Amino acid sequence: MEQRQFILSQNDIPTQWYNVAADLGEAPPPPLHPATQQPCSPDDLAPIFPMGVLEQEMSTQRWIDIPDPVLQKLALWRPSPLFRATELEKALNTPAKIFYKYEGTSPAGSHKLNTAIAQAYYNKLEGTKRIATETGAGQWGSALSMACSFFGIGCTVYMVRCSFTQKPYRKSLMQVYGAEVYPSPSEKTRFGKQILAKDPDCPGSLGIAISEALEDTVAHDDVKYSLGSVLNHVVLHQTVIGLETKKQMEMAGVYPDVIIGCVGGGSNFGGIVMPFMADKFAGKNVRATAVEPKACPTLTEGPYKYDFGDTAQMTPLLKMHTLGADFIPPAIHAGGLRYHGMAPLVSLLKQKGMIDAVAVDQMDIFEAAVLFARTEGIVPAPESSHAICEAISEAKRAKEAGKETVILFNLSGHGFLDLGAYDNYFHDKLQSTAACSTCAQR
Amino acid sequence: MEQRQFILSQNDIPTQWYNVAADLGEAPPPPLHPATQQPCSPDDLAPIFPMGVLEQEMSTQRWIDIPDPVLQKLALWRPSPLFRATELEKALNTPAKIFYKYEGTSPAGSHKLNTAIAQAYYNKLEGTKRIATETGAGQWGSALSMACSFFGIGCTVYMVRCSFTQKPYRKSLMQVYGAEVYPSPSEKTRFGKQILAKDPDCPGSLGIAISEALEDTVAHDDVKYSLGSVLNHVVLHQTVIGLETKKQMEMAGVYPDVIIGCVGGGSNFGGIVMPFMADKFAGKNVRATAVEPKACPTLTEGPYKYDFGDTAQMTPLLKMHTLGADFIPPAIHAGGLRYHGMAPLVSLLKQKGMIDAVAVDQMDIFEAAVLFARTEGIVPAPESSHAICEAISEAKRAKEAGKETVILFNLSGHGFLDLGAYDNYFHDKLQSTAACSTCAQR
Repeated sequence: MEQRQFILSQNDIPTQWYNVAADLGEAPPPPLHPATQQPCSPDDLAPIFPMGVLEQEMSTQRWIDIPDPVLQKLALWRPSPLFRATELEKALNTPAKIFYKYEGTSPAGSHKLNTAIAQAYYNKLEGTKRIATETGAGQWGSALSMACSFFGIGCTVYMVRCSFTQKPYRKSLMQVYGAEVYPSPSEKTRFGKQILAKDPDCPGSLGIAISEALEDTVAHDDVKYSLGSVLNHVVLHQTVIGLETKKQMEMAGVYPDVIIGCVGGGSNFGGIVMPFMADKFAGKNVRATAVEPKACPTLTEGPYKYDFGDTAQMTPLLKMHTLGADFIPPAIHAGGLRYHGMAPLVSLLKQKGMIDAVAVDQMDIFEAAVLFARTEGIVPAPESSHAICEAISEAKRAKEAGKETVILFNLSGHGFLDLGAYDNYFHDKLQSTAACSTCAQR
Repeated sequence: MEQRQFILSQNDIPTQWYNVAADLGEAPPPPLHPATQQPCSPDDLAPIFPMGVLEQEMSTQRWIDIPDPVLQKLALWRPSPLFRATELEKALNTPAKIFYKYEGTSPAGSHKLNTAIAQAYYNKLEGTKRIATETGAGQWGSALSMACSFFGIGCTVYMVRCSFTQKPYRKSLMQVYGAEVYPSPSEKTRFGKQILAKDPDCPGSLGIAISEALEDTVAHDDVKYSLGSVLNHVVLHQTVIGLETKKQMEMAGVYPDVIIGCVGGGSNFGGIVMPFMADKFAGKNVRATAVEPKACPTLTEGPYKYDFGDTAQMTPLLKMHTLGADFIPPAIHAGGLRYHGMAPLVSLLKQKGMIDAVAVDQMDIFEAAVLFARTEGIVPAPESSHAICEAISEAKRAKEAGKETVILFNLSGHGFLDLGAYDNYFHDKLQSTAACSTCAQR
C-alpha cells in the first residue's frame, strides 16, 4: 500500500519554538504607542498581556523553550498528522505530490489551541483570573475557552455577530468549556453600544470585537487580553506546526517546492511557513503562498504601513499590510479570515519578497472543499479551504507543465461547525465576491 | 513527560478482521426467514445484501482478510490513537489507569466508517448502483454517505425524525458527500406514510427507518441495503478497533482489567471487545461492560429471544436481547443508542456470562461528558459519553478500593455535531430518565 501517513510519536513534539525574528537580518519594526507614536515598551503593554507573553513578543532569540506544563497539554493531541493526499491526486490526475498537515485533530478542531494553551499558561503563572478575547469564526474562542478551562481561568469571548448568528454551535462549544460568549458589537461595552446605536444590524468585525475585549480588559485589574493571531508571540507558538512538518517531510523523503496556507491574521500560515523560511534565508529554494479571500484582500491590495489592530484605535500601531482599521468586510462564510490587518512578521516577509499572496473567490473555495471532502474524507473549514483551493491550482499547473511539484499545505481545521455554510453553498445562497455589493463598493 | 499517547504507524493497520464466531464453541443461532421461520440461506438475503457481505455474515472462519482497496481507504485515518486519560485521572484523583481508544479521528467523526467502507466496497464489486440505509444520530448515515462517495455509489438515508430535527447539520454533512436524506417516518415509502397517517408527530425510531430503507431496497433491482450495526459482519468490520488497541495496550505495558463501550446496536462495543474475548475464551481474566441508556435498556431489561430487526417486521428474525420490534424509545439525545434490539453476537456473549451490562441516566452521561471535555479536551458524542460515565464510575470504585485498576474504554466519536444537546443540558432542557413520561409508561 502506498504511504500516505507520516506519523510522529509523542517524543517528537518540538520542545522549542522557532522565532523568525532572529533570521530577518534586521529588527522588525516595533509597535508604536497609540498616544505618543513612540515604540512601545513592555511596561506600556503590561496592563494587557502577561510579561511571559510580552517577552516573547519582543524577543529576537532564535529558539525559545516550550515550558513543560505547555508541552503536557500539547500532548493531548500533538504531534498532528501529515498526510499525502493520494486520493485527491488521483482525482486531479496530476503528477504533483500533494501533502497536507492536518491541525483539525486538535480537540478544539484547529491550530488555534497551540497558542491558546501557551497564552493561558503564562496568564495562569502571573495570576490572571479571567481572559477577554474576540473571535471571528469561533475557532479561536473555542480554543481559548478550552485552554482557560485546562488552567482554571475564566474566559469572556466577544464573537463577531455575523459568525455568532451563522454558527450557534460555536457558542455551545465554548459554554462546554465554561466561557461567557457575547455577540459583538455587544451591549457589554461602551464601544459596542456606540456602534449599535449607529447601526443596530452591524455584522461586526474582528476589529470591533478586539476593541470590546480590550475595553473589558483595561476596565478590570485581574483581567488580561489575549489575541488569537497577528502578533509575533502567536506566530511563534504556531511554529510547532512547521517544525513537526519538516520532520514529517523528511520521513516522506521530499522537500516542498511550495508551501500554502490561508491567511486571516496570518498565524497558521506563519506557523507552517516560518521554519521553512529559516532554510530560505540560508539559501534554499522554496516558495510560500498566502491565500486570502477576495472579500478581504489584505496582503494583495492593502498598503504596508502603521495601522491600528482594532476599530476603536485602542491597540498599539503595527507595521503591516492593512485595509484600514475601520474596514468592515462583507459577511463571507470564512469568518476567520475577515481581518483588516496582517501579522507584522508575515507582512514583512511579503515586503522582502520571501512569500507570495493570492486572493480567491468564496465560490471557488467551496468547490475545492467539496472535492477534497469527497476524495480525502475530511470536511474542511471554509478558512482552510482557501489553502486547498490554491493547492489544487498548483496541482493543475503542475499537470500542464508535466512537473512532479511537491505541494505542501496546512489544513488548519475541520468544518464540522461550518456545515451551515456548506448548506448555503448547496442551496445557491452564497454569492461570488464579484457579485457582492459590499465588495464592489470598496 | 508522562506517556499519554500510544501511536501506531500506517503499517500497523490490521490486515485481517477477527471473527469471534470461530471461538464461541457453538454455531451462533441463525437468522430465521420471516415467513417460514426456518434458518435463512444466503440466497434468501441476496436481494438485500451483496454476496461478499453475506458470506461474512454466515462465516465461522476466525480470520478474514481485509481487501486491499478497503485497507487503502482505512489508511485515510487509521490506525486511530490510544490515549491514557492522564488529565481525567488527576481530576478524579484515582489510582486507576484510564485508557481510551479514540475513533473520532475518522473523517466521519466516529467508528462507523470502518464498516461503511467495507460494505460500500463489496457493493461496488457486485455492481450496486445505490445503497439505502437508516440512521439514528446521523453518525452512520454520514459514514455511509462518505464511503459511497469514495466508491462512486448513490446513497439514500432515512434519518430518525427526532435526530433529523435535533441535528440539522448532520443532513448538511451527508449532502457534502452527495447523499439524499429524508426524515423517517417519511412520505417516500408506503410504511412511512402508514405511520404518519396514524401519528403525524411520530419521533421515529431506528426500527421504523430500517423498514423504510428495506422497502426502498426491495422495490428496486440495483439498490441494496446496508446496516450500520447489529449484524455479524458489522461487528466483524469493527474488530480493527480492538486489534489495534491490543497492540497499543502492549506498547503501554498493561492489559485491561475492564473494557467499556456504549451499546445501541452493539458494533463499537463489539469492535473493541471481541479481540479481547478471544483471550478470555483462552482463560484470560478480563471484564467487559456494555453501557446503554436507561431510556432504552435492551441488554439489562430486554428478554433474549427471536425478534424482528425492524418495526414493519420485514427483516429476518434475529436471536437477541430485545425490547420488542414495536418499541419506540423516548427522544433522548443519544440518538445512536435508540434501538430496540442488540447485536446477536453481543447478546450471546451476555447469555454466556462473558460480558456485563449497565444502564445509565442521560443527566449523568452529560455530567461525565463535560468533565471529560474540560480535562481531556475532546467534546464527546452523547453516545460515547455512556462509556465515559461508566469508566468514571469504575475509577471511583478503584479509588475506594485503593486499586490500580486498568480501565479501557472506546470513545467511539466526537460531539461536534451534538452541541445542540449540550446546549439543552446547560439550559435545563434535558430530563432524567426517571422523569420521562415515555419511560415511566414502559
